[in-house]
Amino acid sequence: MPSLEPIVRSRKVEKDVNGVSTEVVCTEFSNYIFIVVTQYGKIGTLISIKPDSTTSDMSIPTFSTKVLLGNNEPLTHVCAKNLAAFVSQEAGNRPVLLGLALKDSSVDSIQQMKEMIKSSQVW
Amino acid sequence: MPSLEPIVRSRKVEKDVNGVSTEVVCTEFSNYIFIVVTQYGKIGTLISIKPDSTTSDMSIPTFSTKVLLGNNEPLTHVCAKNLAAFVSQEAGNRPVLLGLALKDSSVDSIQQMKEMIKSSQVW
Repeated sequence: MPSLEPIVRSRKVEKDVNGVSTEVVCTEFSNYIFIVVTQYGKIGTLISIKPDSTTSDMSIPTFSTKVLLGNNEPLTHVCAKNLAAFVSQEAGNRPVLLGLALKDSSVDSIQQMKEMIKSSQVW
Repeated sequence: MPSLEPIVRSRKVEKDVNGVSTEVVCTEFSNYIFIVVTQYGKIGTLISIKPDSTTSDMSIPTFSTKVLLGNNEPLTHVCAKNLAAFVSQEAGNRPVLLGLALKDSSVDSIQQMKEMIKSSQVW
């Protein structure tokens, strides 16, 4: 019987963000980082965030976002990039799959959620 | 400070399936059951499995599958329905989001993976 190393790592944090119960689940896959930020217990809108291939190391990295499930609203793309672009950069340019179910998407709350993602780093 | 109940439940099982390390991660969201079955550590192909609305309680339930990420191959749809249709039924007809990264998709292996999903029930 071969020994089985865990091949998928996952972390979960819960916190009160400006009065709203917020949960962040980060799971590392070899080809994706999967993150759910939820204030409803729902997986919410599912967005893929991929780094664009750059022609030069000096250029500022840019990201493409695509809504895979749920409502395709401009704010969703902005929140997704804000929350997950740094993860992709830190995780060797792996794309991020992000589930987003927010009651409150104010700039301050998004910043706090970003800190939650940082604290549940699996990559 | 309000108390924070966990709003997302998750379970992970690992097992040797016909000689291949296999990991199953099941996470319950209020609007979806998220399941990853991986033999590569990858999230793999991402498929949504939704019950079709039926006109009669007597009819046999049917499911629609859609590939959200990755290769759209006929076998993927068959495996997805095989693995996840019973979850949807047991979870009050919630749709299932399934990540599938299989080295071995033989009937026997799929059956064993289904048992793994059953044993990591979060719904």
